[in-house]
Amino acid sequence: MTTELQLIDRFLSPFARKGAGMVLGPGDDCAVLRASNGTDQCVTTDALVEGVHFTSELFSDADIGHKALAVNLSDLAAMGAVPRWFVCSVACRASDAARVPRIARGMAALAARAGILLAGGNFSRADTLSLHITAGGEVPRGTALTRSGAKAGDLIYVTGTFGDAALALALRSLQRQNKAVLLHQLRPEPRLAVGLIARRHAHAAIDVSDGLLQDLGHVLEASGVGAHIDAHLVPVSQTFRDVAANLDLALTGGEDYELALFIPAAKASAFERECERVGQKVSCIGAAVKGGGLSVDHAPHLKRGGFDHFAGVRNPA
Amino acid sequence: MTTELQLIDRFLSPFARKGAGMVLGPGDDCAVLRASNGTDQCVTTDALVEGVHFTSELFSDADIGHKALAVNLSDLAAMGAVPRWFVCSVACRASDAARVPRIARGMAALAARAGILLAGGNFSRADTLSLHITAGGEVPRGTALTRSGAKAGDLIYVTGTFGDAALALALRSLQRQNKAVLLHQLRPEPRLAVGLIARRHAHAAIDVSDGLLQDLGHVLEASGVGAHIDAHLVPVSQTFRDVAANLDLALTGGEDYELALFIPAAKASAFERECERVGQKVSCIGAAVKGGGLSVDHAPHLKRGGFDHFAGVRNPA
Repeated sequence: MTTELQLIDRFLSPFARKGAGMVLGPGDDCAVLRASNGTDQCVTTDALVEGVHFTSELFSDADIGHKALAVNLSDLAAMGAVPRWFVCSVACRASDAARVPRIARGMAALAARAGILLAGGNFSRADTLSLHITAGGEVPRGTALTRSGAKAGDLIYVTGTFGDAALALALRSLQRQNKAVLLHQLRPEPRLAVGLIARRHAHAAIDVSDGLLQDLGHVLEASGVGAHIDAHLVPVSQTFRDVAANLDLALTGGEDYELALFIPAAKASAFERECERVGQKVSCIGAAVKGGGLSVDHAPHLKRGGFDHFAGVRNPA
Repeated sequence: MTTELQLIDRFLSPFARKGAGMVLGPGDDCAVLRASNGTDQCVTTDALVEGVHFTSELFSDADIGHKALAVNLSDLAAMGAVPRWFVCSVACRASDAARVPRIARGMAALAARAGILLAGGNFSRADTLSLHITAGGEVPRGTALTRSGAKAGDLIYVTGTFGDAALALALRSLQRQNKAVLLHQLRPEPRLAVGLIARRHAHAAIDVSDGLLQDLGHVLEASGVGAHIDAHLVPVSQTFRDVAANLDLALTGGEDYELALFIPAAKASAFERECERVGQKVSCIGAAVKGGGLSVDHAPHLKRGGFDHFAGVRNPA
C-alpha cells in the first residue's frame, strides 16, 4: 500500500525545490511567495479529469502532467504574466500510485522550461484521476492584459495553428492518427513569450481554449466592439489542410491553447518583428470594428459554437 | 441542460465581486491580485471529494461549500495569514447543477465572515462531485508562522476541542447522532483570529487536520525537538466526555481543523490574554523538550497514527 506521504514525495521529487520569490515551498501548511514590490500577481486554475479531458488510451502519463500545467500556463500567457508558482491538487485511486511519478515528470519538464515553481499540493482519494492546478504569475502593476481593452481598428493576431487538437480526436474515432496533429492534443505549448511581448503592444488578449470564434466573442463582449475575420487567414497545419473537409474545426474545435491578441495597427509591425525574433509565428486574421458581433468570411459550413463542459459537445472518452 | 456559463454564474452570484487588492476578479483568463508592498503571500490548496470527505447523507450542500473553504482557511490560519483570495475548481455531474448555488451559498457565507474574496474558478464534468480550492493570504514579509521554529521549553497550546469530528462519523455508524458533535464534522471553524495573534508570539504552528499526535509530530520533526503532552489536558467537548470510551479519537481522530501552537513561556500569558479578548479558547497541553519523540501521559489505549488518504483508515462513505 502506498501512503499519502510516499505519493507526495514521489510527486515532488522531479521538481526544483528552491527559487527566487519562494520563501517557503512544499511541506508546510502553506507555501510563502514573496511578491516583488510593484508587481501584480495573476492567479488561474484549471483541471484535467480522466475520461473527460484525457484517456489513458491516447495520453501517456507524462502527457497528462504536461497538459495539466500547460493549460494553466496558457492562461498566464494570455495576461502577459511571467509564470512564478503553481499548486497541484491530485485526486486518484490507490492503484494510480505508479502513475504519479510519471505524471510529475511530464509536468516538471514543462515547469522547468517555463520557469515556474511548484509551491504546494494535495492528494485526495477518488474513483477517477484528476489534476486541479492553480498557477500564479506576475506583471508590473496595472499592466495585465485583459479581455476588455480591444478597440475598433485593432488588428486581430493569433499564435500557432488551429484545429489540430480537435482533429486529433476526430481522427482517433476514424482509426487513423497523425503524430504531428496528435501532439497538439497531447502537448499544447503555452505561448508565454508572445504573451510577454503582447503585454507591451496589445489592447486585449485571450487564451483560445474553447474554440476560436467563441473565445473571440468573449473579447468582443468584454470590450464592446465587433470584429471581422477571414477564415482563410486562420492558420492551420499542412496536415489539417490535407485531411479536414472544411475549416469548422479550426474555428470552433477547442483545446488549441493559442492566444488571440488585439493589437493597435500602429504597433503591429513592431509586434510581428519581436515575435519573429523569439521564433514565434503570429498571423493576422482580421480586425476589430465598431458595433457588436463577429462576421466571418469564407466559412460557408459554419455552425457557431465552442466547447461547453456541460453541453456534451465533445468527449474523448 | 445547464450550460457551463450558467453554472459559473450561479456559483458566482452570492460572492462579493469587488475588494481591496483584487484588480481583476472572475471572468477573465486570470484574476489579478495586487500584493501590498512588503507582504508575503501564503498559498494553500485542499480538496473535498464526495464519498471520501463527505456524503450527501450527512452533509447538506451548504455544509460542503463551507467545509471546502474552511479546510483551506485553517491552513492560512496556521501561517498567521490574513485571508485574501481563493479560487475554486469544481468537478461535477451535469445532474449536480441544482446543488451548485447551494454549495456556493455555504461557501460565500464563510468567505464573507473571513474577509476572503473569490478570485476565479473552473468547472469540469466528472462522475463524482469534488471541490478543489486554492487560497492565498498575506503576512508581513518574513513573519509567516511555520512548522520549523519550535524550541525546547515552548508551551504547546491548542485551539477549540478535539475528537468531535471523528466522533460524529463513529456515532453515525452507530445510528445515533448528536447535533453539537456533528457540527464539528460539518462546519469546522477556521481559527484565523488565533493565527493572527500567534504570529506575534509563537515559534511554530500547524493546522491539526490529520490527528493531533500525527500533526504535532510534523512540528517536532521540522523543528528538531521532542515534546511531552498530557492527554487529560487535551480539550474535548462535554458530549465527547460523556460518549467516548477513551481519548483515542481526540488524539488521533483527524478533521479537527484546530491549531497547535508552540509559544515561548515568557509570552504565554500575553498570548492567552489576547485570545481571551477575541473570545477564542486556547488550552496548554504540554511542552516541547530537548531531543526527539513525543511522549503522552494518560493515554493507555493509544495506537499512534492519523489519517492517510491512501491507507484506508477512515471513510465516511
